Amino acid sequence: MTRVFDQPEDFAATALAGFCAAYADRVAPVPHGALRAVPGAAGKVALVVGGGSGHYPAFLGYVGAGLADAAVAGDVFASPSTSAVASVARAADCGGGVILGFGNYAGDVLNFGAAAQRLRAEGIDTRILAVTDDVASADRSETEKRRGVAGDLLVFKIAGAAAEAGMDLDAVEAVARRANANTRSFGVAFDGCTLPGQGAPLFTVDPGHIGVGLGIHGEPGIRSEKMVPAADLARMLFEPLMAERPEGHDGRVAVVLNGLGCTKYEELFVLWHHLTGLCQQAGLQLIQPEVGEFVTSLDMAGCSLSVMWLDDELEALWRAPADSPAFRKGVLTPAPAGAPVRRVTAEAPQAQIAKGSAASQQSAACLSLILDRVAEALADAEEELGRIDAQAGDGDHGQGMARGSSAAAAEARRLAQAGAGAGTVLSMAGDAWADRAGGTSGALWGVALRAWGQHLTDQTAPDADMVATGAQAAYDAVVALGGAAPGDKTLIDAFAPFVARLREGVSAGADLPTAWTAAAQSATEAAQATAELLPKLGRARPLAERSLGHPDAGAVSLALCARVVGAELSRG
Amino acid sequence: MTRVFDQPEDFAATALAGFCAAYADRVAPVPHGALRAVPGAAGKVALVVGGGSGHYPAFLGYVGAGLADAAVAGDVFASPSTSAVASVARAADCGGGVILGFGNYAGDVLNFGAAAQRLRAEGIDTRILAVTDDVASADRSETEKRRGVAGDLLVFKIAGAAAEAGMDLDAVEAVARRANANTRSFGVAFDGCTLPGQGAPLFTVDPGHIGVGLGIHGEPGIRSEKMVPAADLARMLFEPLMAERPEGHDGRVAVVLNGLGCTKYEELFVLWHHLTGLCQQAGLQLIQPEVGEFVTSLDMAGCSLSVMWLDDELEALWRAPADSPAFRKGVLTPAPAGAPVRRVTAEAPQAQIAKGSAASQQSAACLSLILDRVAEALADAEEELGRIDAQAGDGDHGQGMARGSSAAAAEARRLAQAGAGAGTVLSMAGDAWADRAGGTSGALWGVALRAWGQHLTDQTAPDADMVATGAQAAYDAVVALGGAAPGDKTLIDAFAPFVARLREGVSAGADLPTAWTAAAQSATEAAQATAELLPKLGRARPLAERSLGHPDAGAVSLALCARVVGAELSRG
Repeated sequence: MTRVFDQPEDFAATALAGFCAAYADRVAPVPHGALRAVPGAAGKVALVVGGGSGHYPAFLGYVGAGLADAAVAGDVFASPSTSAVASVARAADCGGGVILGFGNYAGDVLNFGAAAQRLRAEGIDTRILAVTDDVASADRSETEKRRGVAGDLLVFKIAGAAAEAGMDLDAVEAVARRANANTRSFGVAFDGCTLPGQGAPLFTVDPGHIGVGLGIHGEPGIRSEKMVPAADLARMLFEPLMAERPEGHDGRVAVVLNGLGCTKYEELFVLWHHLTGLCQQAGLQLIQPEVGEFVTSLDMAGCSLSVMWLDDELEALWRAPADSPAFRKGVLTPAPAGAPVRRVTAEAPQAQIAKGSAASQQSAACLSLILDRVAEALADAEEELGRIDAQAGDGDHGQGMARGSSAAAAEARRLAQAGAGAGTVLSMAGDAWADRAGGTSGALWGVALRAWGQHLTDQTAPDADMVATGAQAAYDAVVALGGAAPGDKTLIDAFAPFVARLREGVSAGADLPTAWTAAAQSATEAAQATAELLPKLGRARPLAERSLGHPDAGAVSLALCARVVGAELSRG
Repeated sequence: MTRVFDQPEDFAATALAGFCAAYADRVAPVPHGALRAVPGAAGKVALVVGGGSGHYPAFLGYVGAGLADAAVAGDVFASPSTSAVASVARAADCGGGVILGFGNYAGDVLNFGAAAQRLRAEGIDTRILAVTDDVASADRSETEKRRGVAGDLLVFKIAGAAAEAGMDLDAVEAVARRANANTRSFGVAFDGCTLPGQGAPLFTVDPGHIGVGLGIHGEPGIRSEKMVPAADLARMLFEPLMAERPEGHDGRVAVVLNGLGCTKYEELFVLWHHLTGLCQQAGLQLIQPEVGEFVTSLDMAGCSLSVMWLDDELEALWRAPADSPAFRKGVLTPAPAGAPVRRVTAEAPQAQIAKGSAASQQSAACLSLILDRVAEALADAEEELGRIDAQAGDGDHGQGMARGSSAAAAEARRLAQAGAGAGTVLSMAGDAWADRAGGTSGALWGVALRAWGQHLTDQTAPDADMVATGAQAAYDAVVALGGAAPGDKTLIDAFAPFVARLREGVSAGADLPTAWTAAAQSATEAAQATAELLPKLGRARPLAERSLGHPDAGAVSLALCARVVGAELSRG
């Protein structure tokens, strides 16, 4: 289990600070991530990688010449926020455009995608590169739904080498996509992992068994099997990859045998001994294979095997030198003595606060109190929501909601005290929520509160009709960003009936507390009903099946918030 | 726990093979270890490091330019045999003499020491370098008794850089000893580790607690404490090292924060964040610190902090480039293309087998049967002996005895079938035992059987007097090599009364079965009595205390063997 931390919620940030201190000669700290201490050449394409923390050396350990220009670190197992990705990428840009590389998880797709839009709007040409190497996570007919695991290293190495070689953005994107298309991984787990501060593991594997195809956040695999000798384990990892060997390929491969955290290097070497035999029998030519820890999963026990089917260009880029804290290849010329070492510290400047009318300031104060209650309720529910989420995902939902809501409440308090109106308070509370929570839910709650706030003015006290209209706007924003529809087993399933019922009650002339309470009731019933649904969003079948009979955590927390707010409103 | 293996007893050898395959471009396999693929310059001092397996990257991962010329890998947590150390060193010798570097553990001291003697006898000037950095393992007034932990890396780095710089053997030895004298480590454990194939951990730490000062084989520490936040943990590691800061030192230090296996890099970075603050407050100047896994302990959870107090020469050698699979510093010029890559495979040639007389051949056949019985009994007792040994050491005694005796039995069978006499069979069975068992007991049983065998001729059937005389010779050889005296809680305590009683019975005219059975009885009683003794051999106090009330595993297994042989002799 994870034992070394101070406050669990500070784990990722403190680890980032410690990493930057340990490699002060190689990387420069930047809010939410790290840059190369010595910037890439002007006009070079910048490769910015990232995702949740807990996977070191992914992603910070990849920052260095020939590999990534920067890495963004989210909280543990949670995607970094859109603004975090954007600000790190902004600092890493060398003028040649940006490639955002990440594993194919809903939260990362959402936040890196939104960051790319934001950067393009600012005039920085940005492409996204979602790695989809895990053959266990979806059928080969749906490779776009596959998760990204240790193939990250192979794909990022190609992109980084291409960028270092001076290829332009289109060319780097093209070769990186080909690398991803040629990369396959298959993993097994022997034991679960524990989030900092949690007493129980996020998931477990039956003692003496193997979770075959299990994902790096504990997403369930294909089957559970009794533990087997190393020779058989090697075959178990090898065969699913060979099953997708490209037609008539000459057999040149880059191979990565990856340990997940608690599986020892010596165990990996035992496995490698058997794998070299299998590769030989299969007529593969191993090009500079790697055995070690490259994408881990906290203290999870297990390993994965990745292959990239090479062509001449991919082989040359794979062989090219690289020099990062966690990955080195070949020999590089050292940075010229006294080369500029970056020290980036500036956060984005605070926006000016517009004063609200007296009435709106009073509403803002109430809003701040309501957000305090919501934050309290979500803090209490954190573990329970995590358990529910673990049935369908990586179990970080409770943590994300607790972090986001407390950040939103704090921001609302600050703004209300500074005299802001209700509209400003709610909008900016939404931004604070998204930035602190990260992950999928953080991004969705951020746009929801921002949209909602824009329908409450800073001039008058919001009335029931404004609130109902704002709710509809918030719902529309969530659908637009998340791309989910009712029935996909997301918070949408609770949000839709809530909005409809609220509008219905308000139109029928009910006062806000009454209409809201009824709407919250509908949301609660709908959330419970999600137990019978299967999730969508590029998830593997077994994962979906595990969640059957369990409600969606996002829907449950939305209903919880609705009830808390209703109770507060009724109290007047 | 350790999960990836085939037959547990093959774990270390298979891991070695896999390591050599994974780094085929950097290292060359050699029996029981690995050499640099590209040999050092002619006349260069060769640094050969080693110890038990299970500590990767110690020791194989250190083989490379600027660091070690070769590494010897024993079985898991067991010293390599004397002949393994000697043969690897022989292959690594560049003509400038050899430094044998290892951690200060009884088995390693014994086998590396004996190997050094053997090499010097062959004309290879050889020095031994026992690392003694663990401040928790003995008082500062007895630093020579301290264990070697992650300080290995610091001391070996200095020795390796000095050798690479072309310093001669005396100079390399001198600076390496100064490095060891200036190096201190302190470690903590959060959870135990499990030997391959074992269902239960070798030792445990109370859940939610810290084993403060606990050793890398589970040797007990100073105290057990409740788990504390990372900031306090940093102080816990830091303060014992500062307590031994040299008078008026300027504060330049090389620092290594080492993870023991299951403690994650991100956890180490969290700790490092706090440690940098403490170093600053203490006025230390950190010279190229290292954070990561350098000396592990299978799947043990925990970490250690090491400092080397630098002077100008030590700083220059610490900063010097190094390039090994697990440790790189600075930038090295690549090996010239097509540089000679060594492929070492030859085992020592089989000795010619001298035929024995018909009578002696018959005795040899009996001897072979007796050794079969002994091997069976030790295989049955393996786990029990491991449990007893774990009270005072690393729990590998049962495994070593089982491995050694079965190797001895197999060798005896081979020789008896080839027509060798009893003397040759017993002597060479001893060599086989030592080579396969490794560790302390392996070396001692090896010299014992060899000495004993030299008193049985290949001409006549051995009589009771020859056997009793051989027993005395065996005892003398064990005392000479092991340096232990009766009362030190070693196998000597059972061996001494056995030899005395056997001689007594034989002199009184008893037949061999009768005299031997009585002697075995004395050995058994003496072995039980060792429960009241405290072990010697450079062990830390808490370790000694833990073993009180438990008999010595070596004495117990000697008595067991004596009884088995006695029963066989009585059966006729």
